[in-house]
Amino acid sequence: MLFKVEMDVNVPPDVDPARFEQLKAAEKARFQELQRAGTWRHIWRVVGRYSNVSIFDVADNGELHDLLTGLPLYPFMDIRVTALCRHPSSIHEDDR
Amino acid sequence: MLFKVEMDVNVPPDVDPARFEQLKAAEKARFQELQRAGTWRHIWRVVGRYSNVSIFDVADNGELHDLLTGLPLYPFMDIRVTALCRHPSSIHEDDR
Amino acid sequence: MLFKVEMDVNVPPDVDPARFEQLKAAEKARFQELQRAGTWRHIWRVVGRYSNVSIFDVADNGELHDLLTGLPLYPFMDIRVTALCRHPSSIHEDDR
Amino acid sequence: MLFKVEMDVNVPPDVDPARFEQLKAAEKARFQELQRAGTWRHIWRVVGRYSNVSIFDVADNGELHDLLTGLPLYPFMDIRVTALCRHPSSIHEDDR
Amino acid sequence: MLFKVEMDVNVPPDVDPARFEQLKAAEKARFQELQRAGTWRHIWRVVGRYSNVSIFDVADNGELHDLLTGLPLYPFMDIRVTALCRHPSSIHEDDR
Amino acid sequence: MLFKVEMDVNVPPDVDPARFEQLKAAEKARFQELQRAGTWRHIWRVVGRYSNVSIFDVADNGELHDLLTGLPLYPFMDIRVTALCRHPSSIHEDDR
Amino acid sequence: MLFKVEMDVNVPPDVDPARFEQLKAAEKARFQELQRAGTWRHIWRVVGRYSNVSIFDVADNGELHDLLTGLPLYPFMDIRVTALCRHPSSIHEDDR
Amino acid sequence: MLFKVEMDVNVPPDVDPARFEQLKAAEKARFQELQRAGTWRHIWRVVGRYSNVSIFDVADNGELHDLLTGLPLYPFMDIRVTALCRHPSSIHEDDR
Amino acid sequence: MLFKVEMDVNVPPDVDPARFEQLKAAEKARFQELQRAGTWRHIWRVVGRYSNVSIFDVADNGELHDLLTGLPLYPFMDIRVTALCRHPSSIHEDDR
Amino acid sequence: MLFKVEMDVNVPPDVDPARFEQLKAAEKARFQELQRAGTWRHIWRVVGRYSNVSIFDVADNGELHDLLTGLPLYPFMDIRVTALCRHPSSIHEDDR
Repeated sequence: MLFKVEMDVNVPPDVDPARFEQLKAAEKARFQELQRAGTWRHIWRVVGRYSNVSIFDVADNGELHDLLTGLPLYPFMDIRVTALCRHPSSIHEDDR
Repeated sequence: MLFKVEMDVNVPPDVDPARFEQLKAAEKARFQELQRAGTWRHIWRVVGRYSNVSIFDVADNGELHDLLTGLPLYPFMDIRVTALCRHPSSIHEDDR
Repeated sequence: MLFKVEMDVNVPPDVDPARFEQLKAAEKARFQELQRAGTWRHIWRVVGRYSNVSIFDVADNGELHDLLTGLPLYPFMDIRVTALCRHPSSIHEDDR
Repeated sequence: MLFKVEMDVNVPPDVDPARFEQLKAAEKARFQELQRAGTWRHIWRVVGRYSNVSIFDVADNGELHDLLTGLPLYPFMDIRVTALCRHPSSIHEDDR
Repeated sequence: MLFKVEMDVNVPPDVDPARFEQLKAAEKARFQELQRAGTWRHIWRVVGRYSNVSIFDVADNGELHDLLTGLPLYPFMDIRVTALCRHPSSIHEDDR
Repeated sequence: MLFKVEMDVNVPPDVDPARFEQLKAAEKARFQELQRAGTWRHIWRVVGRYSNVSIFDVADNGELHDLLTGLPLYPFMDIRVTALCRHPSSIHEDDR
Repeated sequence: MLFKVEMDVNVPPDVDPARFEQLKAAEKARFQELQRAGTWRHIWRVVGRYSNVSIFDVADNGELHDLLTGLPLYPFMDIRVTALCRHPSSIHEDDR
Repeated sequence: MLFKVEMDVNVPPDVDPARFEQLKAAEKARFQELQRAGTWRHIWRVVGRYSNVSIFDVADNGELHDLLTGLPLYPFMDIRVTALCRHPSSIHEDDR
Repeated sequence: MLFKVEMDVNVPPDVDPARFEQLKAAEKARFQELQRAGTWRHIWRVVGRYSNVSIFDVADNGELHDLLTGLPLYPFMDIRVTALCRHPSSIHEDDR
Repeated sequence: MLFKVEMDVNVPPDVDPARFEQLKAAEKARFQELQRAGTWRHIWRVVGRYSNVSIFDVADNGELHDLLTGLPLYPFMDIRVTALCRHPSSIHEDDR
C-alpha cells in the first residue's frame, strides 16, 4: 500500500554538530535498510531545501507510523502523509 | 531530470458528458504513450480526490511545460511543479 | 485500517431540486449499506455546515478511493483523507 | 454531546527528558481514566505526526474546556475543537 | 451553552431580487423570534461586510445545527461555529 | 462603539511561574475593573485554548488601543480587532 | 476616527458593460462627494489591480458601515476594514 | 525602476475561442512592443501553468499601473507586483 | 512616488529593556526627521497591535529600501511594501 | 535552464555579529563568482526585506540544489524554487 510522505528537516540553530552528524549517519543507515527492503520505495530531494519527497510501500497505516516516528531524525522533522493508490490508466499493475 | 507534478482535475458542473469522456480517453492515450516512453515515470491517484501525484523525467524545463500544457485535460487542471534531484543517501544511481 | 474522511457538500445554486433529492436519497441508501457493513464506521455532522466527519475502516487505500469516488454525491463533494492508526495508550485493541 | 478534538503535541527541543516522560505517563493515566468513563470516546494517532484525532462526549462546553486544559501535556499542545452532532442518515441513535 | 457563530452572506450575482427580498424578510422574522426567545443572544454587523458575529445560547450542539441550517438564508451563508464557555475571571455567573 | 476583540495568550516555555501568576492576577483585576465600567462588555473563553472572545464598548479607536496595549498580559498576547455595529434587524437599540 | 479600508472590485465576466459604466460613474460621483466632505480622506490605487487603499474619517463604526454598503459598486466589492488611531510619535495632532 | 510582476491568466470555460485568440494576438503584439522598448525587460513562463514571471523597468508606479491595466488580457489576469531594487553585491550597475 | 508600508514590531521576550528603549527613542527621532521631510508622509497605529500602516513618498524603490532597512528597529520588524499610485477619480492632483 | 529562486534570510537575534559578517562576506564572494560565470544570472533585492529574487541558469536540477545548499548563508535561508522556461512570445531566443 503506497503513501506519499513529505519530510522537512529543521535544524535547530544551536544543535551540537557532532550529535547531529551522528543522527544523520544513523538516519542514512536506517533509510538504506528500508530502501533495500522495498519499504521506502522512492526518495527525492526537493531542490533548494532540506526536504524530501518519498513513496512508502507498507502493509498498513500502523506500520507506516512506526517506521516514520522511529527515524533517527524524526524529532527534527515535519512530516505530511498522503494516501495513494494505483492509477486506473497505468499500464503497470503495481504502481511502481 | 525529475519533477514532481501534482494535478487536480476540476470538472465544470455543466460540462458536456460526451465531450468530457472523449477528452478523458484522449488523456489516457497520451498518458500511456508518455508512460511507455519513460517520460511520465510514475503516477498515483490521491485517495478520495480527482488528483494525481506524478514523477516526470524530462530533458529540460521547456519539454515539461510543453508536455503538460499539451495534455487533453489541461484546460481543466490545476498543476503544481516541484523540481527534484537525486537524494545523496540513495543506493540507486538514477532515483527510480 | 482506519482513515478520517472529511466531506464538504457544495450545492450548486442552479441545481435541479428533484435531481438533487434523488442523489441525496441514493447517498443515504449507500451510506447505510456501508454503515451496516462496518466500513463507514462513524459519521458526524459538523454543526452549522453541510459537512461531515467520518471514520472509514477499509482493507486498503484502493478500496477507500473506490468507495469515496463512487458515492452518489461525490461530484459535489470536497474530500480530505487522513491516515489514522491505533493510539498506543488506548485500552481498546481495535481503535473503535 | 460530541466534539472532534485535534491535538498536536510540540516537544520543545530543550525539554528535560525525565520530566517529559513523567508528564507523558500522567497524560496516559488521565486519558485512560477518561476513556473508561466514556468521556474521551475515541482516539486515533495521525500517521507520521505527534498528533491525535479524538471524539469527546461531554455534558457541555465548560466540561470540555476544563478537561482539555487540565491535561498534563496541555502546555505543549495546540488544540482545535469542532462541535459535532448526530448525522440524520445514521442508523444509530447515539452517534457512536 | 454558548457558541460564537460567524455568518457571511454571499448574494449570487444573478439572484432574483424579489425572491431574495422575500428570503431576507423571512430571515429577519425568524431571527427576531429567536432573539426574543433568548436563543440568538447577540448579533452584530461586521463593518463593511454582509456578515454578522452572533452568540447563540442553546441546549446542545444538535439544537444549534438545526437552528442554523433552518435559516431562510442558510443556502447563501458560509457559517463558522466556535464553542465558548464562561470566563473564570468574569464577575457574572451567566456569561452575558 | 463596539468591537470584537480576540486575544490569544502565548505562555513562553521558560517564563518564571511566580512572575506570570502576578501578571495574571493583575490582568484579572484590570479586566474586572473594565467589566464593571461596562467597557469590556463581554468575555468568553474559547473551548480548549488559552484564548478569549470579547466585546468592547469604547468611545473611539484610540481608547481601545490604549486599553488593550495597557493590559498586564499584553506582551504575551496576539490580538485581532474587528469593528462591529448594530444589526438593523435587532429588536434592541443598543446591540447588547 | 480613522479606518484603513481596502476594496477589491470583482467585475463579473458577463456584466452588462453599459450598466457597469453607469455604476462606475455613480461610484465616482459618490466618492468625490465624500472626498470633498473629508470623510473619504485618502484613496490610492494598488498598482496592477482593480483595488484601492483608502483612509476614512468617520464619527463611528455605524457611519462607516452605512457609507461602505451604500456605495454603487458595493455588490461587486470585497472590503476589509482595519481600525487605526493616532501614532504616538507623530508630530501632527490629527493623523493626517 | 524595477518591479517583479507575476501574472496568472484565467481562461473562462465558456469564452468565445475566436475572441480569445484575437485578444492573445493583441497581447503578444503589445508585449513585443514593450519588450523592444525595454519596459518589459524580462518574461518567463512558469512551467505547467498559464502564468508568467516578468521584470518591468518603468519611470514610476503610475506608469506601471497604466501599462498593466491596459494589457489586452488584463480582464482575465490576476496580477501581483513586488517592488525591487539593485542588490548591493551585484557586479552590475543596472540590475540587468 | 507612493508606497503603503506595513510594519509589525516583534519584541523578543528576552530583550534588554534599556537597549530596546534606546532603539525606540532613535526610531522616533528618525521617524520625525522623515516625517518633517515629507518622506514618511503618513503613519497610523493599528488598534491593538504593535504595528503601523504608513505611506511613504520617495524618489524610487532604492531610496525606500535604504530608508526602511536603516530604521533603528528594522531588525525587529516584519515589513510588507505595496506600490500605490494616484486614483483616477481623486479630486486632488497629488494623492495626499 | 532557468529557475526563479526566492531567498529570505533570517538572522537569529543572538547570532554572533562577527561570525555573521564573515558569512556575509563569503556569501558575497561566492555570489559574485557565480554571477561572473553566468550561473546566477540575475539578482534583485525585495524592497524592505532581507530577501532577494534571483534567476539561475543551470545545467540541471542537481546542479541548482548543490549550488543553493552550498551557499555560506544557506543555514539561515528559506528558499523557494520555481521552474521557468522561455516565453513563446519573446523576441529573444535565450530568455535573457
